[in-house]
Amino acid sequence: MTRLVIIGGSDAGISAALRAKELNPAVQVTMIVADAFPNYSICGLPFYLSGEVPDWHRLAHRTEEEITREGIEILLNHTVIRIDPARRDLTVIDSQHQHSQISYDRLIIATGAVPVLPQIAGIDLPGVFPLHTMADSFAVAHYLESRSPRSAIIIGGGYIGLEMADALTLRGLAVTVVEHNPTVLKTVDARFGQLVAADLEKHRVHVVPSVRIEGITSVGNHIEVQGTQQFSAQADMVLIAVGVRPATELAKDAGIVTAFHDAIRVTRQMETNIPAIYAAGDCVETWHRLLQQPTYLPLGTTSHKQGRVAGENAIGGKKEFAGSLGTQVVKVFDLAVARTGLREDEAKQAGFTPLTVTSELWDHKVYYPGAHRLNISLTGDMETGYLLGAQLLGHWQGEVAKRADIFATALFHHMKIDEISELDLSYTPPLSSPWDPVQMSAQSWWCASRKLQKA
Amino acid sequence: MTRLVIIGGSDAGISAALRAKELNPAVQVTMIVADAFPNYSICGLPFYLSGEVPDWHRLAHRTEEEITREGIEILLNHTVIRIDPARRDLTVIDSQHQHSQISYDRLIIATGAVPVLPQIAGIDLPGVFPLHTMADSFAVAHYLESRSPRSAIIIGGGYIGLEMADALTLRGLAVTVVEHNPTVLKTVDARFGQLVAADLEKHRVHVVPSVRIEGITSVGNHIEVQGTQQFSAQADMVLIAVGVRPATELAKDAGIVTAFHDAIRVTRQMETNIPAIYAAGDCVETWHRLLQQPTYLPLGTTSHKQGRVAGENAIGGKKEFAGSLGTQVVKVFDLAVARTGLREDEAKQAGFTPLTVTSELWDHKVYYPGAHRLNISLTGDMETGYLLGAQLLGHWQGEVAKRADIFATALFHHMKIDEISELDLSYTPPLSSPWDPVQMSAQSWWCASRKLQKA
Repeated sequence: MTRLVIIGGSDAGISAALRAKELNPAVQVTMIVADAFPNYSICGLPFYLSGEVPDWHRLAHRTEEEITREGIEILLNHTVIRIDPARRDLTVIDSQHQHSQISYDRLIIATGAVPVLPQIAGIDLPGVFPLHTMADSFAVAHYLESRSPRSAIIIGGGYIGLEMADALTLRGLAVTVVEHNPTVLKTVDARFGQLVAADLEKHRVHVVPSVRIEGITSVGNHIEVQGTQQFSAQADMVLIAVGVRPATELAKDAGIVTAFHDAIRVTRQMETNIPAIYAAGDCVETWHRLLQQPTYLPLGTTSHKQGRVAGENAIGGKKEFAGSLGTQVVKVFDLAVARTGLREDEAKQAGFTPLTVTSELWDHKVYYPGAHRLNISLTGDMETGYLLGAQLLGHWQGEVAKRADIFATALFHHMKIDEISELDLSYTPPLSSPWDPVQMSAQSWWCASRKLQKA
Repeated sequence: MTRLVIIGGSDAGISAALRAKELNPAVQVTMIVADAFPNYSICGLPFYLSGEVPDWHRLAHRTEEEITREGIEILLNHTVIRIDPARRDLTVIDSQHQHSQISYDRLIIATGAVPVLPQIAGIDLPGVFPLHTMADSFAVAHYLESRSPRSAIIIGGGYIGLEMADALTLRGLAVTVVEHNPTVLKTVDARFGQLVAADLEKHRVHVVPSVRIEGITSVGNHIEVQGTQQFSAQADMVLIAVGVRPATELAKDAGIVTAFHDAIRVTRQMETNIPAIYAAGDCVETWHRLLQQPTYLPLGTTSHKQGRVAGENAIGGKKEFAGSLGTQVVKVFDLAVARTGLREDEAKQAGFTPLTVTSELWDHKVYYPGAHRLNISLTGDMETGYLLGAQLLGHWQGEVAKRADIFATALFHHMKIDEISELDLSYTPPLSSPWDPVQMSAQSWWCASRKLQKA
């Protein structure tokens, strides 16, 4: 009988464990988890800190008991400090600092990512927090409750930064977001980033673009943040959310090759360069379905898919990861902002001849109450007519996310933009139009592209 | 120069006219409309009668002026009474009863459908209404305002019947729905029909299944409806919504062949059997993309697509209609019910070996406020693993419709159910799960199918 050991108990780890057990209940699966929180929804932390999720226990996708019931052994508060590929065993240290050895037949590394912390003075001052783990979250929650801060500076205007701006505003704090790019949410084109920034300002979040943080100091009861362009501001707390990097030290020490963005190099079957060792999730390279090459796109959805493939292959399967399109959505106040595929600049860099056309539409028939404006920006290849990417921005209850997913499904199947009008999509006046906005945006792109070609 | 004449100004007609003009602005396009309401949203009538759309003018997808501005000539209140294919002209009668001749180079027939009226006594009594045209709608609106009815019997529990049950309940009427099938909404499986009926009852709509209406009589100030199973009930008004049939008399008189369900037989290029005459919309057969044969599926979305193909081909194109999947959604009270592809019984009849598995899921992470239960029922072929159809039922703001469209896009591309887990769909806790419910339902189907195959 095979013993499958998985290092990590978040998205990729749990997905691998469940898939292996589902396919072969006889496999012995052990999941080694560095903290006490297996299978927690890290994406849910902002909603816990906002107060919308009163009890953090509810953030568990599955409880420890539910996982164990599937026949998966969990070692909590155990850290793997060494992988020995020759002997196929791991050196593990527990919360009592006791060492032990665990042997494996197949190993899956799912160590995830760690937050990037800028190398500046003051980053470790009290009141300055990263936000990635449950422990980070408890520290922030404790500070919010015990110190009742009235203002916060958030460094980083990406997904987590903006969700936290929403969360802390909801709690009554005055929030400033500092972003080193010219617009927030750099996962979408600048035009959409500007719309998001305008909406943040409408909700009294102060957005400071194009500023790189240079130092943090303690000034009386406050924390002062200094940056380029003479930026200086004080607040009661500071959150750092400038991105993540793959957690790959353990793997590298064992001779596992990393490549793009220092992430573990894997085949599409999620194999590393070392026999019997697989890897999945935020610690590995991501195969991009459109670019047909590895990139780095740490997302929970991708981790689940890669974990599932790794779990299947570790017990003898030959599944291939179908690839990521970078599909993602974020809700900030009343807006949902979604994207799938390539942005205009990414498409250009990849050698396409992209044309991007933005349409402003109603999310359903305007005569039915509650219609909202929906922005859809399509990027397509001028030479072939193929869809390359889509970005959507609208009211979060206007089916923005699942419209992005229609594009994601179209991209998965390598559709031409013109063919999108052929899709048989659903319609009723409270929810759409006879041509769904997805299709109207495709028709606009086609008209614009035709005009350009005639000119 | 070509003169394109279109009979009909609703979905198929307008879509054909716009497409022809878009592709060749030099084409002369004349649209002959039997009433004064070109391009009106017939699907919006229930929302006008509920009071949610206070002004019926807002139901126009486009105003007459907007259509004319596209260079399309409109003849309102003109009825075509004869097509002469040999001379390529039409005999038309206007509202002053004047006859005239209109010649064409290419003709598109888009005469739509007419409501089926049961052949029973009392169908034409005052207070008994069909609901299909703007005129029908005005008659109902006038009756509601002038007579303040307090109760209504709706004959037919399909889309329009249920939307009207919702609309009249909202106006304060006590509503009874009489349906001749054992469950309402026969476009979905019985299980879903029962869930819809239970929800209707919760909103105090009385649902009477398995009763066929046999007569309508006037009893004092009331209208009495009698049916099978000793059914008898009185109300202040009666609505008839038992379905539609293609309006094809004009076409048949001209020698145009009809076939399935008495709808005009068309090629996938929307050609009839007579040269230079095309047809599209509710008056024609619908090519079914999965069945690969004609059926009859009168839907606005399909009419638009067929009209677009007809408009393109009438001016020299060679486009093919990609086919319908019968994708549709209806909102009734707080529920959205959607389907795409084949029901279990349709799949069986078509020679597949269908398995249908229903999953009950949350529409987004349950820890985030406002999560609702979402039912997804998947039908797949046991022998090949291909997706055949999907039905969804959930809260109308739970992205039910666009999730149905993800399945519709998957069906368009002939996906296996197992492959649905490979789609890169978007996730944020307020809107989904790391595996979207679409994917969780696919995984449930796969597990159930595997168990059956092992057994």
